Amino acid sequence: MTRVYLDNNSTTPIDPRVAATMEPYLHGLFGNPSNIHSFGRECTETMAEAREQVAAFLGAGPDEIFFTGGGSESDNWAVKGTAGARPDRKHVICSSIEHSAVLESCRYLEPLGFRVTFLPVDRYGLVDPEDVKRALTRETALVSVMLANNEIGTIEPVAEIARICREAGVTSHTDAVAAAGKIRVDVNELGVDLLTISAHKLQGPKGVGALYIRKGTKIHPLVHGGHQERGLRGGTENVIGIAGLGKACQILATEWQQNAEHECRLRDKLEQAIVARVPEVLTDGHPTRRVPNVCHLSVGYVEGEALLMNLDIEGIAVASGSACSTGSAEPSPTMKAIGVPPLFSNSPVRMSVGPGNTEAEIDYTIEVFEKVVARLRSISPIWKKRG
Amino acid sequence: MTRVYLDNNSTTPIDPRVAATMEPYLHGLFGNPSNIHSFGRECTETMAEAREQVAAFLGAGPDEIFFTGGGSESDNWAVKGTAGARPDRKHVICSSIEHSAVLESCRYLEPLGFRVTFLPVDRYGLVDPEDVKRALTRETALVSVMLANNEIGTIEPVAEIARICREAGVTSHTDAVAAAGKIRVDVNELGVDLLTISAHKLQGPKGVGALYIRKGTKIHPLVHGGHQERGLRGGTENVIGIAGLGKACQILATEWQQNAEHECRLRDKLEQAIVARVPEVLTDGHPTRRVPNVCHLSVGYVEGEALLMNLDIEGIAVASGSACSTGSAEPSPTMKAIGVPPLFSNSPVRMSVGPGNTEAEIDYTIEVFEKVVARLRSISPIWKKRG
Repeated sequence: MTRVYLDNNSTTPIDPRVAATMEPYLHGLFGNPSNIHSFGRECTETMAEAREQVAAFLGAGPDEIFFTGGGSESDNWAVKGTAGARPDRKHVICSSIEHSAVLESCRYLEPLGFRVTFLPVDRYGLVDPEDVKRALTRETALVSVMLANNEIGTIEPVAEIARICREAGVTSHTDAVAAAGKIRVDVNELGVDLLTISAHKLQGPKGVGALYIRKGTKIHPLVHGGHQERGLRGGTENVIGIAGLGKACQILATEWQQNAEHECRLRDKLEQAIVARVPEVLTDGHPTRRVPNVCHLSVGYVEGEALLMNLDIEGIAVASGSACSTGSAEPSPTMKAIGVPPLFSNSPVRMSVGPGNTEAEIDYTIEVFEKVVARLRSISPIWKKRG
Repeated sequence: MTRVYLDNNSTTPIDPRVAATMEPYLHGLFGNPSNIHSFGRECTETMAEAREQVAAFLGAGPDEIFFTGGGSESDNWAVKGTAGARPDRKHVICSSIEHSAVLESCRYLEPLGFRVTFLPVDRYGLVDPEDVKRALTRETALVSVMLANNEIGTIEPVAEIARICREAGVTSHTDAVAAAGKIRVDVNELGVDLLTISAHKLQGPKGVGALYIRKGTKIHPLVHGGHQERGLRGGTENVIGIAGLGKACQILATEWQQNAEHECRLRDKLEQAIVARVPEVLTDGHPTRRVPNVCHLSVGYVEGEALLMNLDIEGIAVASGSACSTGSAEPSPTMKAIGVPPLFSNSPVRMSVGPGNTEAEIDYTIEVFEKVVARLRSISPIWKKRG
């Protein structure tokens, strides 16, 4: 059976070169990098190399890269660690379409005496830097605005926001999980103090990520313990995962542009064909300020989960809303914030392309998508009754 | 060159059967368990199976097992998550020889308005349950006492402590990282509410662990975010690591006793031979209430790091103090708490046996250990001047 994976924003297949880098750590290379004996030293070197690879990918210094258990941990760390380190400041700002790891970390602070400003976005999901400026007070500890939205792909004006923060002496964080590998991500061009990435969105393994911490940024640990990660993140390092993240970054450092061009070509073909062939479909996200790999559609008069399941039966994997909020029948915070019209709001479909997708897969998906929507609408009473 | 790994309390080699279980997740099986399409479902099943394997190993229900990024995260979660969930209670109790993840999590609470009682231990590292009883107040939220100390191997009276806690309505946590796989660990026999394990001390991979949470226990998340782990731990699950942890637990559920007997035989042989052949060596930890795999010695008139490096040159990997506090020249909290005599306190050596160690490795280690200590002492001015 044909299987087409168009859910690369949920997670990506591991690049075979990444897998090859990880292999030895399943079979024989097992030392604890904290140990100074030979078994440990073998893995200390792994850590140093991976740190350099991640740093090079982000334009950072190796001593500004801190490994974590993934994007959510990095986001929690950025928000809570900054709040903890600036106890005189009891205000944080984030956009209303952040990943749940940022949104929930901010909400966690509220009963602890923090005020949280959730910035609105326009219909494309864009934050207005002027809104950031207006929200800032002398109490503000942190502004967290994602680099690209994980659902609709809109690219936020993070460099502008970071500049405003710097002038106000406020720490800036960006969740770059959905942006890294798709657009240029350079911590100095962006000017942020903190930046989150996750390996499994970069053709690397699950369960590992990093937080970039600009030198001099005040932050407390989220996971207290030993001296690991310069005393800022306790716990024996996930060496196999970190080796994988490093390799994934090294590959992307040279290949991300050709990947992005490939993904953009396939995404545009997919999106244009569906919009042309299927009536009553809205494209979400900003028309131009958008990562190249995401096609997010609101399909009118169709139930999103039914669409997803029917595509799945035909071998096509897509997302209905963010994987991170599956299990909830509620529209995602992003969908609520951009305000999709009622008859379209039940069927968000995200198709996210990866470097491994092919033109033939896109052609197959276009055919199946048209057929499935037609079938679902043929049994829909609302579709029949429409004007 | 002969290489002997006697540092299994720092980390363990991955069991080949665990590695074989993990392999497919490097090559092709990559779905996000949150997704309901076929790629996701493949990994949802992996999660369920692993959860049952871990639960069976600990005598828990599968819905009481929560996967984390490792033992340190589990410990942080237990301490901070309990403190957060019982905001009316501003007192926590732990032993003074806990792993740094517990000690530092407790210290983190102090500036937030919590009082922390660090319980003393006797010269063997034992906590007195009467001390727990005396320390409890109506303000106490949590008692955290490890099941076996990671450095000297002493087994704490956790069941008795948990009973005292239950009667007082206080949450009990135990860090079982150094105990699991070496002694029987059953959450109901122990009666604790929270229990930490780490995969990489169980012939599993680094970067993954679990927190057992007894049904009904009040706890807040440490990592906020999506709905994962029943809404208590955000972040895409580390499927490859979780599969490895599950398999490691499944193996140990049937093999831990034969491993323990094997390790105990080798450990006893090693310890008895060194004590018989090397003068001025103290054995640390409780003589009988001790995990079977740890031999912790304080070698008089020798510098611990020199001993470790000289053994390393001969291919033997041991620990000098806990790997988790390497980088510090200070004696570990455990060494300070048990009170080793001055001329012995600079040279703690921990040799921790694993299921893969052989009799020949132990024989080699005994020979080399004796030779190395004699050589180091021959150039030591204090040794020559001793009475």
